[in-house]
Amino acid sequence: MGMDSTEVKRLVAETVVDRVVRSGMKVGLGTGSTAIHAVRRIGAGIAEGRLTDILAVATSFESTIEAQRLGIPLRTLNDPDIDGHLDLVIDGADEVDTRTGFLIKGGGGALTLEKLVEYNAGRLYVVVDESKLSRRLGSGFPVPVEVIPAALRAAARALEALGGRPELRMAQRKAGPVITDNGNLILDVHLGDADVDAHYLETAINSIPGVLENGIFSRADTEIWVGRADGTVEEVEIG
Amino acid sequence: MGMDSTEVKRLVAETVVDRVVRSGMKVGLGTGSTAIHAVRRIGAGIAEGRLTDILAVATSFESTIEAQRLGIPLRTLNDPDIDGHLDLVIDGADEVDTRTGFLIKGGGGALTLEKLVEYNAGRLYVVVDESKLSRRLGSGFPVPVEVIPAALRAAARALEALGGRPELRMAQRKAGPVITDNGNLILDVHLGDADVDAHYLETAINSIPGVLENGIFSRADTEIWVGRADGTVEEVEIG
Repeated sequence: MGMDSTEVKRLVAETVVDRVVRSGMKVGLGTGSTAIHAVRRIGAGIAEGRLTDILAVATSFESTIEAQRLGIPLRTLNDPDIDGHLDLVIDGADEVDTRTGFLIKGGGGALTLEKLVEYNAGRLYVVVDESKLSRRLGSGFPVPVEVIPAALRAAARALEALGGRPELRMAQRKAGPVITDNGNLILDVHLGDADVDAHYLETAINSIPGVLENGIFSRADTEIWVGRADGTVEEVEIG
Repeated sequence: MGMDSTEVKRLVAETVVDRVVRSGMKVGLGTGSTAIHAVRRIGAGIAEGRLTDILAVATSFESTIEAQRLGIPLRTLNDPDIDGHLDLVIDGADEVDTRTGFLIKGGGGALTLEKLVEYNAGRLYVVVDESKLSRRLGSGFPVPVEVIPAALRAAARALEALGGRPELRMAQRKAGPVITDNGNLILDVHLGDADVDAHYLETAINSIPGVLENGIFSRADTEIWVGRADGTVEEVEIG
């Protein structure tokens, strides 16, 4: 029963990097306590000469800073080298519905750039420990919704009308609410016991005026990889 | 044929203010060359004591500055006095489809706050001159789409995939692109000759990662009022 949570996160992230990242690829860098291990593994591959001609796009200030520290060549999705399209992204998730493969992301507040980068990649590899797996999306984690400050009250009402219970995410080490990398607020929306149609909800939330993005990820071409405390890593079968 | 364009805009805006704004109401203040006349008429009503206990919410820096100049009491949608809901808004539009009543707005770049305020009001009164009326949405004006800077290239691709031709809105009196009141960019999306399902397109564009809002307004409870050069003002019959 060996590994602690940090070790498991590193194991699954490194295993997937070694399996799928090849020289010459354009890769997205995820955000959070699991994805950071993937960023570091890519950085080590570049430093040791195993990975060459990698171009990376970050999903947050966190992954930008880490990539700069490690010397990973960064671009933006707008650069002509990238032209709005990546080969793959490796990132964590806050909850994975193993029936559908749909995700909740945004515990780290980076949901908007994560979705931008990951919906513009050929393939998304999700790396998680087994605590993130669930059989009903929303049962383990609220859905983060990024809203412009002017929309706070009206968007909260609209989210309540959709059946959720929104809660403004408060900061630590800063007075008042969390401010995202885009200068906005986050409402964490508790879904309760209802069985939600995640694909419908993803679209419906984005149609609320003042909502920039939400943390439901229902894109196709996603592989889920799970690490376990016994030291094994495997792809999760969806269904 | 009597009135010039500015006079017609003032006529229709003032007529509708006199018709629908009453003391004690919570009103949204529109943005642009027609709506500004409604803001001024409300300000005059307050200054002359005809309108009392008005609370207003602005849709832009433009209408904020004008309301402050005129002494109109401003709140935000978040204030407890407003609690995310207004009685009515009076605003202009860049194009009105007279078959459906759907609008294109955002020539002034204020589409996101306009939509936030107007979708949270009991009724929207649109005031236009007849040059804004059309029989096919998108034939007279491109659809403005507000995107975060990081999404520029990827969102442009996605808008092309929906059949549009996006063009980055460039600034005057500032180098480079227009920056919105929210710090973002605007893609003006030319729809060409296709007959678009505006309600579908409004939702589909908002589902593109990095899109904050778009200028298609398909909300219900909208009245369209048109001013003409002969000095008449009438409600437009939709259909």
